[in-house]
Amino acid sequence: MKVTLHDGTILEVSEGETLYEVLTRSGIYLTASCGGKGVCGKCRVKVLDGEFDCRGYAKLTKAEIDAGIVLACQTVPRTDLRIEIPQESRLTVGDRIALSRTKDLAGILQDYGASVSPLIRRTTLQLPPPSLDDNLSDLERIKRSLDEEGITLRYPRRFFEDLAQHLRRHQWGVNLCWQPDNRDALFIEPLSSEKRYGLAVDVGTTTVVVYLVDLDTGEVIDTGSTYNSQMRYGDDVITRIINATEGGLLRELRKAVIEDVNDLLEVMLKRHGLDRRKVESVSIAGNTTMSHLFWGLDPEFIRLDPYIPTINLFPVWYAREAGLRTNPDAPVFTLPCVASYVGGDIVAGVLATGIHRRHELSLFMDIGTNGEIVIGNRDWLVTAACSAGPCFEGSGIKCGMRATEGAIEGVRIDPVTLEPELKVIGDTRPMGICGSGMIDAVAEMFLKGVVDQKGRLQDTPNNARVREGEDGLEYLFYGEDNREVVLTQVDLDNLIRAKGAIFAGISLLLKEVGLDLNSIEKVYIAGGFGNYIDVRKAIVLGMLPDLPEERFQFVGNTSVAGAYLCLLSEDMRREAETVASMMTYIELSMKPNYMDEFMSALFLPHTDLGLFPTVRGLLQEMSKNS
Amino acid sequence: MKVTLHDGTILEVSEGETLYEVLTRSGIYLTASCGGKGVCGKCRVKVLDGEFDCRGYAKLTKAEIDAGIVLACQTVPRTDLRIEIPQESRLTVGDRIALSRTKDLAGILQDYGASVSPLIRRTTLQLPPPSLDDNLSDLERIKRSLDEEGITLRYPRRFFEDLAQHLRRHQWGVNLCWQPDNRDALFIEPLSSEKRYGLAVDVGTTTVVVYLVDLDTGEVIDTGSTYNSQMRYGDDVITRIINATEGGLLRELRKAVIEDVNDLLEVMLKRHGLDRRKVESVSIAGNTTMSHLFWGLDPEFIRLDPYIPTINLFPVWYAREAGLRTNPDAPVFTLPCVASYVGGDIVAGVLATGIHRRHELSLFMDIGTNGEIVIGNRDWLVTAACSAGPCFEGSGIKCGMRATEGAIEGVRIDPVTLEPELKVIGDTRPMGICGSGMIDAVAEMFLKGVVDQKGRLQDTPNNARVREGEDGLEYLFYGEDNREVVLTQVDLDNLIRAKGAIFAGISLLLKEVGLDLNSIEKVYIAGGFGNYIDVRKAIVLGMLPDLPEERFQFVGNTSVAGAYLCLLSEDMRREAETVASMMTYIELSMKPNYMDEFMSALFLPHTDLGLFPTVRGLLQEMSKNS
Repeated sequence: MKVTLHDGTILEVSEGETLYEVLTRSGIYLTASCGGKGVCGKCRVKVLDGEFDCRGYAKLTKAEIDAGIVLACQTVPRTDLRIEIPQESRLTVGDRIALSRTKDLAGILQDYGASVSPLIRRTTLQLPPPSLDDNLSDLERIKRSLDEEGITLRYPRRFFEDLAQHLRRHQWGVNLCWQPDNRDALFIEPLSSEKRYGLAVDVGTTTVVVYLVDLDTGEVIDTGSTYNSQMRYGDDVITRIINATEGGLLRELRKAVIEDVNDLLEVMLKRHGLDRRKVESVSIAGNTTMSHLFWGLDPEFIRLDPYIPTINLFPVWYAREAGLRTNPDAPVFTLPCVASYVGGDIVAGVLATGIHRRHELSLFMDIGTNGEIVIGNRDWLVTAACSAGPCFEGSGIKCGMRATEGAIEGVRIDPVTLEPELKVIGDTRPMGICGSGMIDAVAEMFLKGVVDQKGRLQDTPNNARVREGEDGLEYLFYGEDNREVVLTQVDLDNLIRAKGAIFAGISLLLKEVGLDLNSIEKVYIAGGFGNYIDVRKAIVLGMLPDLPEERFQFVGNTSVAGAYLCLLSEDMRREAETVASMMTYIELSMKPNYMDEFMSALFLPHTDLGLFPTVRGLLQEMSKNS
Repeated sequence: MKVTLHDGTILEVSEGETLYEVLTRSGIYLTASCGGKGVCGKCRVKVLDGEFDCRGYAKLTKAEIDAGIVLACQTVPRTDLRIEIPQESRLTVGDRIALSRTKDLAGILQDYGASVSPLIRRTTLQLPPPSLDDNLSDLERIKRSLDEEGITLRYPRRFFEDLAQHLRRHQWGVNLCWQPDNRDALFIEPLSSEKRYGLAVDVGTTTVVVYLVDLDTGEVIDTGSTYNSQMRYGDDVITRIINATEGGLLRELRKAVIEDVNDLLEVMLKRHGLDRRKVESVSIAGNTTMSHLFWGLDPEFIRLDPYIPTINLFPVWYAREAGLRTNPDAPVFTLPCVASYVGGDIVAGVLATGIHRRHELSLFMDIGTNGEIVIGNRDWLVTAACSAGPCFEGSGIKCGMRATEGAIEGVRIDPVTLEPELKVIGDTRPMGICGSGMIDAVAEMFLKGVVDQKGRLQDTPNNARVREGEDGLEYLFYGEDNREVVLTQVDLDNLIRAKGAIFAGISLLLKEVGLDLNSIEKVYIAGGFGNYIDVRKAIVLGMLPDLPEERFQFVGNTSVAGAYLCLLSEDMRREAETVASMMTYIELSMKPNYMDEFMSALFLPHTDLGLFPTVRGLLQEMSKNS
C-alpha cells in the first residue's frame, strides 16, 4: 500500500501502520503534543481519496470530519490514500540561524582572553628511522620521542590499526594527534596544514542546532538546524524518559537525535566538499535528559524523587561511541550539567553571557519547555527550573503553533471596539498563535478589560469576540473560510500557570539569597523564542519582572554558543566546569513557600501590584480613560 | 556434495573446495608444513569411493597413487566422497598438560615474594543514598567516595550501561572493579565473595595452551591445549606474516587463534559450571608475531629488514577488543616482547626460571621453531633467535612427525649388526620420527659410523639399512607392510643445519659477552619438545654444549608459566617488563663471524672437538673397540 501526498511524494505503508507513523518514518514531522496518542488533536491531515480505519476523532468538529479531516495518529490506511497535510499540522524549523550573527562568537573568546585549544592536540614527530642498531618497536620509538617533550599518553588498540604503514609511508615524520583530557593517542597524520573542523551542537528538546566551525580561525562556516526526531517519542523530557525506560526505547531515542546531527552534518559536508575525517571534534550542550539520551545513559532517576542524574560532569568520550559520523576518533565534549533539571545548555548560557565573570547581579532565563533561571554574579550563582511547560512553544494551547508562517505573533486590541489587530508571520492568513503572540494577546486583553486580573474572559455584551465555545468561553482572533483561531479559557489558564511558574521561580530564588527584584541589574533572555517577545507586554503579563527595558537583553541560542566556546578552548571547558560547580541548584517545589509564591503569581500581573509599578501606572491610566 | 569420513562423520563440501579446506573448516587439522600449497606432500588421505579432480601428486609414490592416496590440499571432490585419514596425516595435541605439574607455579610466586594482585582491583563503596539535599549525580557520588581513598579513575562510557540500576538494586553498597594500569573503571558488582577466575595463555606458533586459574588461591583448576588454528595459514611465523600481509588475511589469522582460546575456555566453563563473567582477567605470552596477530596488529615489518615490531611493550587492553569470550571487560596483559624474534614467550621463560634473579650464569633455550636462547644472570641478559627451523617439530623431514602415537622417539643402533632398535610412542607400529627420535638417531648413526663427521651417510657394504632412495641415500628405520620410515640425506643435512644454528647461536652469544661454554652453570631447556630429549645424545650431536648432565634442567612450558605469574601478580608484571628491558637482543645474522661459527657447527659434533671433550672420549673409545 502507499500514501500519495498532495505534492506528489509517494510513501510506502506497512500493514497496520498509522499515517502518523508513515509520515514520521519518512521524515515528515507533524505537530503532535501528545506524541501520537490521539489526545491533542493536532496531527490533522485531509484524506482526498482512499479508504481507512479511524480509531478516534478527538477534538475534531463534525464539519472537519465531514470535510475529510482525520488525526494522522489514529488513522490506518485500508487502501492506497491521497492526502493533504495542512500547513499548521506540519512542523518546520522556523528559526534558520543567520550566519552573520555567529561572528560575535569568536569575539567572546577573544574578550575572555581564552586560548584557542581544541579537543585534539598535535605533536610533531620527526623520528629517526629504525635500523638494526636502533631497533626499538614503533611504539617505543614514538614514546622515546614524546618523553623528550614530557608527554605521556595512553595507547588504545585502535591507534595501531594503520600505524606501522603510516609511519613508513610518511618517512617517520608525522603529527601525532591526542586528546589532552584522557591523554589518549588518537591517530597520526602527515605533516600537512590542512584545515580541520569541529561541530558545536545544541541538543535541544525541540530543536537540534549544529555549527560547523573552522578550528583554526574559529569561524562558523555553516549552520544547520532540525527538529529533534525524539519528538516522535514525546514533546517533553518527562514523556521521553518514560518512553526510554518503561517503554524500553532508550536505544531508539539515542539513535533519533544522533541521526539528526548526522543528517545535518551530511548536508554540510556535501555543501563544502569536506571529508568527514576532517571533522575531528565535537562539543554538545543539552539539558540533563538530552545529554543522557545522547549518550544512551539510563535517564530513569532524573524523573524520580530525589531526581538524580547518572552523570553531571561527563568525561570526554569519542564520536565512534556516540555513533556520530565525523572522524570516528573525534573527541566529544559534553557541557557539564548541574542537576536533573538544570543542564549543560544552561551552563553554556552562563558561559556565553559571562554573568559569572561580572560584578553586576544578573538574571539569566531560558524560557523553553523547562524554563530554567540563573541568578548571580562572579561570586555566586543560584539556579532553578520552573516547569513552565511547553505552552509558549504552542503545546497544550488549542490553536498554538510555533513561530512559523501563519502564526499570529503580535496582537493589538482596540480599546473602543475591542476588535483585534493581528500581526501574522509571513503576512498571510493566520493559522494559529505562537508564544510571542500569546504574550501580546493576554497582555492586551488584560489592559483592555477583556480578561480580569485572574485571566478570566469577560463575556460582556459589547465584545463580540468573546463567545461560548466547545470548552467554555473563548476569544476569537480570526474566523473566516471555515478557519478559526481562538484562545480559550483553558488556554488562558495554562498560560497564566506558565508565566506564574516563571515569576514564582524568579522571586523565590531571589528570596533564597535575600535580594529583591530591583537588585537585578541585567536580564538575559535566551532561546529562539526569546528573540521575538515584547518585553513590555511580558511585564504586563507578570512573566518578567518590572524592570527598565534597557536592563533586558535577548541573547539568542546561548546553548550552541557555549558549545562553540568549549569546542575551541580548553580554558572555556575548564570554565564551564567551574560554572557548573558554582551553580547552587534549588529544588523549587520542595521550598515551603513555593506554593504561596506560585499562587500569588497566578494573577495579572500579580497579587502584589507593588511589584509592578509600571503596570499599575498603565492600569490607572486606562481606568482614567474609560 | 559431501565427504564421508571413515568414522561416519559427514562434511558438507562447497563448490571448488579442496579436501584440505573442507577438513580444516570442520576443525580436522592435517599435517601440512607448506600450509596447503601441494609442496610438502604431508596431507595424505585415502579416497575409498567417489570421483575427484587432482591438481598434483607431489612426493607421492606410484604405489601410493594406485592405492588411492591423494594430497588433500590438491584434491577437489567431483562427487560425494568416502575417505580415510591416516593417523600420520592428522594433527593431534600430544602433550596433555598434567595438572599436578602446575602446583609448582603457586610455589614460584611464593618463592619470589610476589604479592597476589591480579589485573582487577576492587574497592568497596558504601555510598550514602542520594536525597534532595545531597543530590550529587551517581558518578560524582562515586568520585566523592573514591577521592577519600585517594583513587582517581577514568570512566569509559560502557561503565555506565547499568550503573544507575545496579547502584540502587544493591542499596548503594557495591564493589567498584577497576584496572590499575589504565585506571579504568570497569564495572560494579554486589558485595559478595564469589570466586573469580583468570586465564593464563601460551599463544604458541604450533600449540595454544590455556590454564584456568583461581585468582584468590592461585590454583590452576583446569588446563587445555589445542593446535593453533593459524596452522592452516602456514606452519611458521614467516608464512603466516606473508599470509596476513600480502595475502590480506590478518583478520582471519587473528580470529583463528582467538577462537582457539574461546573454544578451550568454553569447554572449561562447561566442565566447571562457571559463568563467563567470572573469568575476569587474561594474561597471554607468545612470540612477537603471535602477540601481534593475537591483537590484529600489522606484522609486516617484523619480517622485513631491520625487523621492527609495532609494539614490544603492550598496553593492557580488554577482552572485548580481543574478541575473547570471557567477561568482556576482562583486562588482558600481554607479556612484553624484546624484538621481532624474541618475544613474550621467552620473557615469560626467563621470568619463570628466574635466571634474572640469580648470580649464577644460566643459559635458557626454547628449542621450538625459532630456537630462542638467553644467556645471563641477575646483572645482564643477552638473547638471540637461531632460526633453527621447524625440523625438530617434524617439518621439512620426509618422515618427520610430532611426538604422538606412532612416532619413533628413541633409537639405538647395534654397533656390530648396525641394525636399529626403535622406541615408538604407544609401542605401536612406527609411522614416522619425532624430534627426540631424530636426535637419538643421528647421534647413534654418528657414533656407529653410519654417518661421517659431516653427517654424510656411509653406503658401506656391511650396512643394509643405507640404500639409494628417491632423493639420494637414505637410512631405513622400518619397512614393512608397504610402510617405510626413513631418514634421508636431505633430512640429515636439515637436522645438522638446525643443530648448527642453535650451537652457533650459543657460542656467538657467549663470545659477545666474552665468556666461554664452561662458564655456563645451568642450562634450562623449555618447550614441550624439550621434555623428551636425551641430553647426552644432543651433546653428541653438538646441539647442546658439552657440560655435565646435572647442569641441564627441563622446565616444560615456561611460556604459560610466565603468563600465569603475570596473571596473578602486579609485581610479576612489572618484573616481566624489567626482564624485557634488561634483555639485549643480538641479531646473529648481522654479526661478521656468524657464518664462521655456523660453518664450524655443521660438523658432528663440531669442527673443534676440543669443545666436546666427552664426545671426543666416546669417539676414541669407539675407535679402540673397532
